Amino acid sequence: MELRQDPTTRLWTLTGAREEEKAEKDGRCPFCRGNEALTPKTISAFYSNRGEWTVRVFPDKSPVFQIEGDLDKKAEGMFDKMKNIGAHEVIVETPGHATSLSMLSENEILDILKMYRERISDLKKDRRFKYVILFKNHGTLAGSTVEHLHSHVVATPVIPARLERELRWAKNHYDMKGRCLFCDIIYQESKQKIRTVFENKDFISFCPFASRFPYEVWILPAIHSHSFEETIQKSTIADSLARILKVIISKIEGITPAYHIVFHISPNESSFRTMRGDIGTLMEDFHWHIEILPRTEGMSRLQREEEFYINAVPPEDAAKRLREM
Amino acid sequence: MELRQDPTTRLWTLTGAREEEKAEKDGRCPFCRGNEALTPKTISAFYSNRGEWTVRVFPDKSPVFQIEGDLDKKAEGMFDKMKNIGAHEVIVETPGHATSLSMLSENEILDILKMYRERISDLKKDRRFKYVILFKNHGTLAGSTVEHLHSHVVATPVIPARLERELRWAKNHYDMKGRCLFCDIIYQESKQKIRTVFENKDFISFCPFASRFPYEVWILPAIHSHSFEETIQKSTIADSLARILKVIISKIEGITPAYHIVFHISPNESSFRTMRGDIGTLMEDFHWHIEILPRTEGMSRLQREEEFYINAVPPEDAAKRLREM
Repeated sequence: MELRQDPTTRLWTLTGAREEEKAEKDGRCPFCRGNEALTPKTISAFYSNRGEWTVRVFPDKSPVFQIEGDLDKKAEGMFDKMKNIGAHEVIVETPGHATSLSMLSENEILDILKMYRERISDLKKDRRFKYVILFKNHGTLAGSTVEHLHSHVVATPVIPARLERELRWAKNHYDMKGRCLFCDIIYQESKQKIRTVFENKDFISFCPFASRFPYEVWILPAIHSHSFEETIQKSTIADSLARILKVIISKIEGITPAYHIVFHISPNESSFRTMRGDIGTLMEDFHWHIEILPRTEGMSRLQREEEFYINAVPPEDAAKRLREM
Repeated sequence: MELRQDPTTRLWTLTGAREEEKAEKDGRCPFCRGNEALTPKTISAFYSNRGEWTVRVFPDKSPVFQIEGDLDKKAEGMFDKMKNIGAHEVIVETPGHATSLSMLSENEILDILKMYRERISDLKKDRRFKYVILFKNHGTLAGSTVEHLHSHVVATPVIPARLERELRWAKNHYDMKGRCLFCDIIYQESKQKIRTVFENKDFISFCPFASRFPYEVWILPAIHSHSFEETIQKSTIADSLARILKVIISKIEGITPAYHIVFHISPNESSFRTMRGDIGTLMEDFHWHIEILPRTEGMSRLQREEEFYINAVPPEDAAKRLREM
């Protein structure tokens, strides 16, 4: 596989077949404790007092990015390409066969957040990578093939398109106003109170003004921070995040069987420094957050091509229903 | 419904429920000649010598954009919104129950192209609209609910996200090089000959270097032109386009049951002039074209969010197979 850039849109395609994952047919869940032999070797894990793993990370069996090698950036005439160097890991978030964050205790969720932090920090040490994508697919409609609770961590040598848009417009806002765009949004949402869902002392959640999907919810740290890793270093704040995540996911699952959880975090700073000259503005203009995106069955072409999203449920109505659950 | 802009990405969402189309349950095809009563009133049509319609246009029964009213652009605090003013029309492309362009004669396709031209020119007269989206969904997987051959024409008060990217990067290339980006791509593809599929004297087709989907094909006028309407005004060139379209669609249908055809044309110039100051560069830096996008069953989250496309079939292999069909 290689990464190719479309010169007309600057979007990247991973071109070529990925190794197909062999389906396990004997009915055993490959992610349950005791079945470790069905998955690749452990990269990292947390253990209980009894020495059994509680959260476990291993390389994806059918990775879209490969860890070994150089990027080997090349031109083919006017076109640009590079090798699909990166990382693709799976975090199994509980040893038992739980299928949702809402089934876990806040302490168990806290452990998962700590593992997110460890993997992100570790992968960001590699200067070949520009970004670390952290996401969870819940439900078959969201593309999940194993129901046992897990997330994907994907380190990429280019900034993903959506994140790039966010960085660009956040910087634009900061250059114009001298304030963080997301802080301004938080200020308005907490005054208007028509799209807010749930708050605690460290985090706020709301259905965003231009929600792409019905019942879409964002969770943001109330105090400005560009770095997920830094924010949750403080244990009381990590506790708050575990708590709000459990509340919001429970509400979302009362409404839809399929959703994505996507972390929007700051790009790899060591790599970013060379890209934009300095990270001074990044620290002031980017605000990490979590997007929870319910998946609906049909998507029109307009929506699939991201020309326009079409969302039948206004976020004000969605937030009201979520608040009252 | 209203259009709301996400300040963090500048992408637009159509918020609110659209009127649901009532399903016709009596088994009659609403698009066949004789069943006009099942669809809204004709906006425009071409007729045979015997006075029967051959191509017919009417408003979509469940439009995403409404023709009547002012845009009524407003702020809600820091957020931007406007009414969903625009147009949403359906072009029924043949009176009989044909389901594919490949079943029609070149002359019949020529008539359809003329109707595309008429509708685009007509809608561009309305200065409320910034762009006219013209597309066809073929097959249920591509979201088509009526199999009778038809296209959608959607006039929008904002430039769609993908087109905006293309305009931006085409202008960037022109500013750097003084040449059209698409002309440069055509030059390289026709020299390399590894991704070309079929050419005639006026058009070239190829699988683009960073194809998003297996067997994706683009068709471009060989001579630079920013305006679809201008290009096909010349009848020999319109003939050439009808011919290459029939060839390419026949090949694509040998490979996949579901695809989109999307026209990427220049934005509404009367509206564009006020947006970017002048259309001088638009005429030199944009190159209209047609994208044929086969639809595959599963899409990963990375792909759905347009962070990265994942395409298992390299365009060189796809083009070879299509050439040899």
